[in-house]
Parts: sequence; structure tokens; C-alpha cells
Amino acid sequence: MKRGTEKGEISYKCWNIRDYSKNKHRKVDDYPYGGGAGMVMTVDPIVSCYNHIKEAVFKKPKVIYLTPKGEKFTNEMAVELSKEDDLVLLCGHYEGIDQRAIDMIVDKEVSIGDYVLTGGELPALVLIDSISRHVKGVLGDDDSLDEESFSDGLLEYPHYTRPAEYEGLKVPEVLLSGNHKHINEYRKTESLKLTLERRPDILDISKLSKEDIKILEKLKNIDKQSK
Amino acid sequence: MKRGTEKGEISYKCWNIRDYSKNKHRKVDDYPYGGGAGMVMTVDPIVSCYNHIKEAVFKKPKVIYLTPKGEKFTNEMAVELSKEDDLVLLCGHYEGIDQRAIDMIVDKEVSIGDYVLTGGELPALVLIDSISRHVKGVLGDDDSLDEESFSDGLLEYPHYTRPAEYEGLKVPEVLLSGNHKHINEYRKTESLKLTLERRPDILDISKLSKEDIKILEKLKNIDKQSK
Repeated sequence: MKRGTEKGEISYKCWNIRDYSKNKHRKVDDYPYGGGAGMVMTVDPIVSCYNHIKEAVFKKPKVIYLTPKGEKFTNEMAVELSKEDDLVLLCGHYEGIDQRAIDMIVDKEVSIGDYVLTGGELPALVLIDSISRHVKGVLGDDDSLDEESFSDGLLEYPHYTRPAEYEGLKVPEVLLSGNHKHINEYRKTESLKLTLERRPDILDISKLSKEDIKILEKLKNIDKQSK
Repeated sequence: MKRGTEKGEISYKCWNIRDYSKNKHRKVDDYPYGGGAGMVMTVDPIVSCYNHIKEAVFKKPKVIYLTPKGEKFTNEMAVELSKEDDLVLLCGHYEGIDQRAIDMIVDKEVSIGDYVLTGGELPALVLIDSISRHVKGVLGDDDSLDEESFSDGLLEYPHYTRPAEYEGLKVPEVLLSGNHKHINEYRKTESLKLTLERRPDILDISKLSKEDIKILEKLKNIDKQSK
């Protein structure tokens, strides 16, 4: 992110919703209609803050509200959002924000995962980090390639670096062999094994090559036999 | 988190893995065996750092490695982890860390979602925030109740607060009615509708009451008719 801002490829700015409260104590929350625990962020400071930002960027920016009830954030969504000129990331607190603020200004509700956090700030940082990586000029060449390993929809194979032996633990011999065909086979097998074991839900057969499917069949047979 | 630390219920400390590098330039990465893009974090600084922490806490702490290939972080996992006395959150960078460091010291690999980030720091903060909320004494009473709404496995219903009308947009009348039976029905219906629409994957029939299932059937019928 530092590199991206230094190069002028990306920039960030924070707005504090409290600054847009018309209340003398800068209050931005109130009790929920219909009762229940927790406080709700009021609509006016949010909409006023948004109007201020809209004037600053000269056009309607895409507004994303970070909330556990939003659409799941994924790498594909990061790629899509990296194409926008401006993004406003709206961070809620307390029980949530008044639904009318969502109806009036929010384009997309996004969740970074199925867990509860104190507010939308950490999710906003997660989006900024992940989206920035897809903006041209932000990443170095080495990192860029990194992304591609994610696009095959498999979990990553294990990595090893020097020394070749550490406290009795050796690097798998195939990685020292210099035989790239074997190395690729080893890595693909490990990736498929791990994905099968931990995340069968993301295994997308349509993205696999014929060779991958052969390895997968073999792994499934081994699994059956060991039961 | 501030409240939790002030009360002495939780505390945090950061260790910089670079401080445990034996290299004069404090280098902690090297090229991957077997080739490929990106750098890999070497095993020795990580294990040395861990040994140092282990001495400080007098017993083996649970070590979590933040990585996209880990088990998915959920609210249930946050509850489980909140019962641990000590947690070490290991943050990777670059292409990942040497697999032998994982084999030697890591108890659990955890992913906060299916997206690529620059390093494990933001995921570590997400875990700290989410886990701390389940440590007794960290949350106020109001917030605590908040959690329960997540435990029914449904997305949250919309919230409204004052004013009753804002730029022509009114709060749904039922919320002003004072009739708690109707309010609960309205909220349950909205929760079920949203979950059905956005996250059918988390809809767990076994957690629903008879009344919920009736509402769900009704919603599904409406959906069919509108097609």
C-alpha cells in the first residue's frame, strides 16, 4: 500500500462520521425502533458525510457498507472493485446503521467473513489491502505472479527455502532434484490433497486440467482405501 | 479492546520476527526450493522467536498461523479460542513461510476469507477483535446480547432509529406499533428473507423454530410465484 501511494496509483482518506453530527455532543447513535439491545447509527450524519465526499470527488462514488450480512468478499470481487475510480467504504458500529442510510446511498453490502467484529474499520482495511493489490503499478512483478496461484481455485502447496536441513527436518527431495516436471507434479498433488482435505467447497472441477483430475482420482482412491 | 486491556482482561504484545534473524541485514526470507515466483520466510527466525515467547509465558501457547490455506475463521472458532490463556498469532509475508516452521510450532492454520492480503497482520487483528469480544468482562452488557443474534445462524434484520421520517423515508409502521409479537414476526421474516436471498449456504433448518419454518415456507412460495 505504501508503494502504491508513493507511486500515486492509490490514495486514501478518512472521514469521521461524528464530524457530521448536528448534535452538540457529536452523537451519532440512538435507540432502535421496536426495541432490542444495542444502539443504531442515525441516518443523517452518514448521509451528510456522504454528500460531502460526493462533492469532493465530483461524481457518485461506489459506496460499500461493511456488514456481516453483506455479500461475501472474495478475490474475484477484489478484482472487480479495483476497476472503480473511487470507493467509499462505510464502517458501521454498534448494532448497525439505520436501514434508510443503506437504502439511500449504499451500492453494495460486503462481509469479509462469518464472524462479529467491533466495527467496520478492520474489514475496510482488509478491502483496501486486497483491492489495492489489483491496481496496476501497486505490486512488484514478483508479487503479481503470486496472484495467479490463487486463480486456479486451489490451496497453496507447501513452501521450503534454505537450509536444506533444519533440526533434523529435511526439504522434500523432489524440490532439490531440479526436475521441473516432478516438481510441478509434487506441488499439484500437494495442492489438490490440501484442498480436498480442508476446503472441498472451493474445489472447482471445471478449472482443473486433465492431469489434475487424474491426480485427484488417485487421491480419492487412496482416501477410500485408508478408511 | 481498549476496555478489555484497561480492565486487565486481555493483553497484547508484538514480536518482530526480524529481531530473531541471525543475518546481519536482518533478512528473514530466501528463494523457494524448486523455483517459482516470490520469496519464502525462513524457518529459523520464526522458531527462535517462538522459543523466546514460550519462555516468557512459561508454557506452550497455542500457535495460529494466518494463511489463506487455513481453516475458515468463524464465530464458533472465536468462542473456542477465547477459552485459551495464551494465543500466538503468526503472520506470514511474501509467498508464505517454510513448511517446517508450520510442522514444528503451528497448532492451527486459520484463514479469515478467500482473498489474498499482503500479510497476516490484518487477519491477526481481525482474530484479536473477534476473540476478545468473547472474553468475559471485555464487552458491556448491551454488546454481549448482540452476539446472540448471530447464534441463530441468520443474517440480521434491518435497524431503524429516530427520526421516524427522513427525506421522505419512513420507519416501517410495525416498529412504531408497540406490538412486540408483530415486531418479532416482522424481524424474523426480514432475517429469513435476507438469509434466503444472500446466504442460503448458512441457513440451518435444525436451528429454526416451528414458527421460523412456517415463515420460510411462506417466503419460498412467494418466491416461486414471482418466477
